[in-house]
Amino acid sequence: MTRRGEFEQIAALFAPLTRGDPAALGLRDDAAVLTVPPGRQIVITTDAIVAGVHYLPDDPPDLVARKLVRVNLSDLAAMGAEPVGLFAACAFPRTCTDAWAEAFARGLGEDGEAFSVPILGGDTVATPGPAVFSLTALGTLPTGQALRRAGAAAGDLLAVTGTLGDGAFGLRAARGELDGGLDAESVAWLADRYRLPQPRLGMGVALRGIASAAMDVSDGLLQDLGHLCRASGVGAEVTVGTLPIAPAVAALQGRDDWLEVVAGGGDDYELLIAVPPHRRDALLAAGQAAGVAVTVIGHCTAQTGVRLRGADGALIEGLGQGFRHF
Amino acid sequence: MTRRGEFEQIAALFAPLTRGDPAALGLRDDAAVLTVPPGRQIVITTDAIVAGVHYLPDDPPDLVARKLVRVNLSDLAAMGAEPVGLFAACAFPRTCTDAWAEAFARGLGEDGEAFSVPILGGDTVATPGPAVFSLTALGTLPTGQALRRAGAAAGDLLAVTGTLGDGAFGLRAARGELDGGLDAESVAWLADRYRLPQPRLGMGVALRGIASAAMDVSDGLLQDLGHLCRASGVGAEVTVGTLPIAPAVAALQGRDDWLEVVAGGGDDYELLIAVPPHRRDALLAAGQAAGVAVTVIGHCTAQTGVRLRGADGALIEGLGQGFRHF
Repeated sequence: MTRRGEFEQIAALFAPLTRGDPAALGLRDDAAVLTVPPGRQIVITTDAIVAGVHYLPDDPPDLVARKLVRVNLSDLAAMGAEPVGLFAACAFPRTCTDAWAEAFARGLGEDGEAFSVPILGGDTVATPGPAVFSLTALGTLPTGQALRRAGAAAGDLLAVTGTLGDGAFGLRAARGELDGGLDAESVAWLADRYRLPQPRLGMGVALRGIASAAMDVSDGLLQDLGHLCRASGVGAEVTVGTLPIAPAVAALQGRDDWLEVVAGGGDDYELLIAVPPHRRDALLAAGQAAGVAVTVIGHCTAQTGVRLRGADGALIEGLGQGFRHF
Repeated sequence: MTRRGEFEQIAALFAPLTRGDPAALGLRDDAAVLTVPPGRQIVITTDAIVAGVHYLPDDPPDLVARKLVRVNLSDLAAMGAEPVGLFAACAFPRTCTDAWAEAFARGLGEDGEAFSVPILGGDTVATPGPAVFSLTALGTLPTGQALRRAGAAAGDLLAVTGTLGDGAFGLRAARGELDGGLDAESVAWLADRYRLPQPRLGMGVALRGIASAAMDVSDGLLQDLGHLCRASGVGAEVTVGTLPIAPAVAALQGRDDWLEVVAGGGDDYELLIAVPPHRRDALLAAGQAAGVAVTVIGHCTAQTGVRLRGADGALIEGLGQGFRHF
């Protein structure tokens, strides 16, 4: 750390974000030193975002930072881990103002506070190009209890937390593409869902010992369910009518691409969960304990592939396979 | 992980770099899950590099990757940690060819092999700007035995591994700025020292229980010694004539800026070590055990500030304070 960093910038922006955690060593050493409690494993995930690719250039910097934190925490939630620290590698454009960088750091701090997770280290560099930020999140969980994508069996129930389609319609809302077609309050709610997803950390913890497989829905239900099924060696059948839909998304149901966006759009950061049928009550109880809506949307099948059924029971064909940035 | 990645690229480029480590979960889950042996702590460091800022645009991509690995491993060495895994966040330019990305990944793999450290996760994204890579390295060490920058006391000896000035003159060699002033073999040797520093991992481990303070020399001896002194609440006196100099750097001694480059230039990635005087023999034995030259260059003082003395014992004034990228 700090080889290329502006020492003053690190000290001013990031040192206050350590929340006094001794593992950070005040951001003044070559690395952080973390003690993992006995009987626990450490869980590590990394995500990178680029200005103009993964966020809108005029997005408020604190919200950009908070979304980056939440996307990483969502990966920890999907594994059933509890966060212990964040490492931020920030390539700020040479034209970046102090105010922008300060607001970005403030966002890291706000969500550090909201999720009780300290910044334990990082690096800041200057780039002649657009901003690139990468965040590495560390969490811990009891040894051997990580939720995995592999593990679902034919007959297992499939469930999701929260509501689907908010992220993808939220991006359109944030871009102003839904103005006029939806009331202003719904547009604002959707844009907020896109900008500030809710990592389901409590639910991830509650699912340990209950779920046979889990992951977060970041690339769209169909694509992510495909990943879970391939990892588990099963297929899946999902009934469209059971998909949990927020009122703001329900209000858009007349659109031609509605189902494609709901089932194929990304950025929801809800948990996709498989559980053996006899654990249905435990699943619903976990949702209640975590304060998160949980909806059963289908089941795993021995036949591979992901199938979507309409209200009439007929298969729906030709839906896209999720949102990709490349 | 993988939210925004090209799944195929991750599978093709990075999955082979896990070296079969089960912690990587085949790069197919939302995060890696690492078991830390009982009685050990985990050490984490992050570094970011930008094309055209931290490496030359026409540098071979495998060497760019290997230097990034080594810079991170040097931070682990400075803490006395043994590496256990790497996480790579890669923002490849949209114009980046498959061949370039493959060569970059090959470099990660080569040094993963050389230092027996697997890639355990990462993210790949596309950027309209220059490439930005960040690497997070994890290591472990016995609980409570991390080498710190704080801990040096007045009277402690100061030592460095290897030779100084190779990195800074190596950058000039790589840029062709030393052509003509130095034989071709020396130019190539220096450029190699700049492009492929040697993380002193064995020495870091050997220093546990011996050094009172340590860090790696990445921003230049004077600046980094200043960091160590401030963290320890001491000052330092260094004798120029004792600085370890490689033959290729000795051959450049006629240059006006020679001492400034040797003592103030960056990119050496040697270890700077403080030891109590009664551990001098243990320090030299550690160097022999690790197969690394160790040279005593001065001592810590109660008077704060870093002072450099010439052969005549007189103080040398007005040297720069190290290499900064900003």
